[in-house]
Amino acid sequence: MALRLSEIVARFGGELVGAGEIEIARIAPLDSADAGDLAFLSNPKYRSQLATTNASAVIMASLDPGCRAAAILTPQPYLYYARVAQWLNPLPDIQPGIHPSAVVFGAVAATASIGPHCHVAHGATIGPGVVLGAHCSIGENVEIGADTRLAASVSIYANCRVGCRCLIHSAAVIGSDGFGFARERDGAWVKIPQVGRVLIGDDVEIGAGTTIDRGALGDTVIADGVKLDNQIQVGHNVVIGPHTAMAGCVGIAGSAVIGARCTVGGGAVILGHLRVADDVNISAGTLVGKSITTAGTYSGTVPFLDHKQWLKNFSHLRHLEMMADKIRALETRLAALENNA
Amino acid sequence: MALRLSEIVARFGGELVGAGEIEIARIAPLDSADAGDLAFLSNPKYRSQLATTNASAVIMASLDPGCRAAAILTPQPYLYYARVAQWLNPLPDIQPGIHPSAVVFGAVAATASIGPHCHVAHGATIGPGVVLGAHCSIGENVEIGADTRLAASVSIYANCRVGCRCLIHSAAVIGSDGFGFARERDGAWVKIPQVGRVLIGDDVEIGAGTTIDRGALGDTVIADGVKLDNQIQVGHNVVIGPHTAMAGCVGIAGSAVIGARCTVGGGAVILGHLRVADDVNISAGTLVGKSITTAGTYSGTVPFLDHKQWLKNFSHLRHLEMMADKIRALETRLAALENNA
Amino acid sequence: MALRLSEIVARFGGELVGAGEIEIARIAPLDSADAGDLAFLSNPKYRSQLATTNASAVIMASLDPGCRAAAILTPQPYLYYARVAQWLNPLPDIQPGIHPSAVVFGAVAATASIGPHCHVAHGATIGPGVVLGAHCSIGENVEIGADTRLAASVSIYANCRVGCRCLIHSAAVIGSDGFGFARERDGAWVKIPQVGRVLIGDDVEIGAGTTIDRGALGDTVIADGVKLDNQIQVGHNVVIGPHTAMAGCVGIAGSAVIGARCTVGGGAVILGHLRVADDVNISAGTLVGKSITTAGTYSGTVPFLDHKQWLKNFSHLRHLEMMADKIRALETRLAALENNA
Repeated sequence: MALRLSEIVARFGGELVGAGEIEIARIAPLDSADAGDLAFLSNPKYRSQLATTNASAVIMASLDPGCRAAAILTPQPYLYYARVAQWLNPLPDIQPGIHPSAVVFGAVAATASIGPHCHVAHGATIGPGVVLGAHCSIGENVEIGADTRLAASVSIYANCRVGCRCLIHSAAVIGSDGFGFARERDGAWVKIPQVGRVLIGDDVEIGAGTTIDRGALGDTVIADGVKLDNQIQVGHNVVIGPHTAMAGCVGIAGSAVIGARCTVGGGAVILGHLRVADDVNISAGTLVGKSITTAGTYSGTVPFLDHKQWLKNFSHLRHLEMMADKIRALETRLAALENNA
Repeated sequence: MALRLSEIVARFGGELVGAGEIEIARIAPLDSADAGDLAFLSNPKYRSQLATTNASAVIMASLDPGCRAAAILTPQPYLYYARVAQWLNPLPDIQPGIHPSAVVFGAVAATASIGPHCHVAHGATIGPGVVLGAHCSIGENVEIGADTRLAASVSIYANCRVGCRCLIHSAAVIGSDGFGFARERDGAWVKIPQVGRVLIGDDVEIGAGTTIDRGALGDTVIADGVKLDNQIQVGHNVVIGPHTAMAGCVGIAGSAVIGARCTVGGGAVILGHLRVADDVNISAGTLVGKSITTAGTYSGTVPFLDHKQWLKNFSHLRHLEMMADKIRALETRLAALENNA
Repeated sequence: MALRLSEIVARFGGELVGAGEIEIARIAPLDSADAGDLAFLSNPKYRSQLATTNASAVIMASLDPGCRAAAILTPQPYLYYARVAQWLNPLPDIQPGIHPSAVVFGAVAATASIGPHCHVAHGATIGPGVVLGAHCSIGENVEIGADTRLAASVSIYANCRVGCRCLIHSAAVIGSDGFGFARERDGAWVKIPQVGRVLIGDDVEIGAGTTIDRGALGDTVIADGVKLDNQIQVGHNVVIGPHTAMAGCVGIAGSAVIGARCTVGGGAVILGHLRVADDVNISAGTLVGKSITTAGTYSGTVPFLDHKQWLKNFSHLRHLEMMADKIRALETRLAALENNA
């Protein structure tokens, strides 16, 4: 597939500097692009690569005189790049139908594609244009909206709902039991039945190995446009607001309510029964132990050091209280001396 | 299914305040309960909701004069709620038999249910009342005890044992190789065969995506009543004592020995070759780098801050040793001045 | 299977102290070994066990006069133990052939073994001696090199390559989409197609539940001899150098480049777009937030404390800047007094 620059600008806008008939077959980074490639400049630290790139054209915010390629000028080059890349790399065609090895009891739209060895339980509804990869397990009464795609080996438990145009990666699990137990006097745990559901909106992406527990009484809710990376754990009755994105390995404990348009860095942990406001950015590795009520960026990680330096410096963490006491005592004694002087 | 309050009290005890013929169909939280619902008051901060709840009855520790509903008085309301919830939400009925798409070489009890596309290898034993969801892989010589239930896509490697009445969620892996290698002079790794097993007791729950490695020489042991949440990693030769519960994303390195009735918060990491005593509570996100010999609660996480405040404050962590030196120097100089005064 | 000490020494070298005809059937730890077992002494803290062990022979670096068993002397006892253990525990025999329940469109070598319910898509190539456990999904055009073994329920997406003699554990996912999105003004995310691959070298081990994302434009590369434990997340376009080993639950963000022969402890997080030099050791739980250019050991975790002590000491972390200010003020005031004295 190849696109002319004129076609690209006709579809996505932007100002073309150069010949419209130049053909683009691929997107590539500035430094490794070849003829026929379209590159982009989003981060100014790569500006010097404009003078040496072999790309046929570059998407950028304003024309750089040193650029040796054609250019498309647009205020958001990275977003423009995303759109062109989608056009150049359309989703694979669907081959509608149910593979003969699949075991299907539910209702499957005629335009859906059910892969080898899938299991679709009684009462499940698979919408038009849906793709299930091999080995997917769809529980009873699950609903999957139009044009949603599941990679291989996705498990969705009974009664959960997935919206339209979602993408769910392999080994993701939707609707497993939340972690809820009462404790007997001898320490033994009594399971609290987890009778809620997981409700997933439209245009949600869920990464490989990510697990989302069903609600205990009410539901766990993932709003429209949420993007979850791999190996994220979402506890029961969590609510994640629209267009919030989380990087890999984030853990969210039960009943946390996360706002809209938040970003959460990799490996962050959000404890349970708290609220995070809209438009909050949480840095990678941060443990959120109380509610965040104001938009902004929040961090809580320690620097790493050469191991010997770390031993020397971080051992004082056990004695910060004593350090503060010593400073107070010094202040008192010094004030006494100053009064006498 | 509906239960009369008189039936509930007859079965589980407690003092009934109100009409025994009131019928309960569901459990619900105080603030969203409707007529026909049973709510509970466990956390005193929700006490004010007793005056406004629409629940037909409330489980609580002592009668609250402001409660507008009927009441069941019991010293442990949360535990009582768990029991009633189990009664109202019984496990789904089992349909005994082996789905024709399953590939079964082992021995399956007549009352067990083997789901679509399961694989049960030679020498495996599946006990009475066991349920295997779709796509489960049961290795050679595995033993699964009575009434244990596996959700879809659980993998159990050869020779492992699972007790009775366990519940294992999707994408859990039992018996993968432990991480054991010796190193050659050039840095290459030589694998140490992992020939032990995983032995899992009775009444254990294992969350979605949780992985438990087999022992290197001896066995990895999960005792009776242990509850493991999602995406927990248990290294080879770990021992977890009875009724210990761990929240999501905990990692336990090889040969750690964890006591009975411990709780481990989400995202905590327990390093290898150490011991944790009985009745230890480890806070979420804590890294346990040495043995804990005394029951109690242990924590080791840093607060999060607004990003600019974090930058300002946490940069000093690299210089705590210097700070302590400065305080010592100040004390010496101040003492000299005081002696001269 | 039993081996005489003379056979072992003939094959792997080392100096035999004792009778060559002693037979060994198993490897066992010093403290639990029985007659017929071979133990090893690698960590000097177990030296006292030499006097009481029931092992028939012990691998050690130098002869210990208190040792009651025969001995094999070798400069690297742990490596020697690994080699003997491999000899005593050979990989299970392969039963070549394609299970009738598998759905295979690609090319499978005659000596490969394809387990029940596998799916091998069009254009995939499965090399000689390869073993696929049950429920593996092999995408279009995937190449798997000779003698590589996959446990049950491994998913490999289209176009990825796995080398020879690799071992991949259950629920591992190779080639899922990287996490790449551009953002619209209203906060909505536009997916950037992930069109690169995952390229895995020879002799790589990948743990259960580990996920490796495909590259966005270029490839994600795992070099020869890399060992990845369970539940590791590798972002798009990451490069991991030869013989680097990572313990469980490590997370690596996109485009990080990790050197050769590194070790990364459990639960560590490596942020994106940075470099880690060769021969770097990163301690468990450390967050690597900037590049490491020099070989060595690096750490960045906080100690844990009794919860009350933790509350008291760690609350000062929010006020380290103020503490440093106070020390500076004390120094100034003290210097003024000293000048006046």
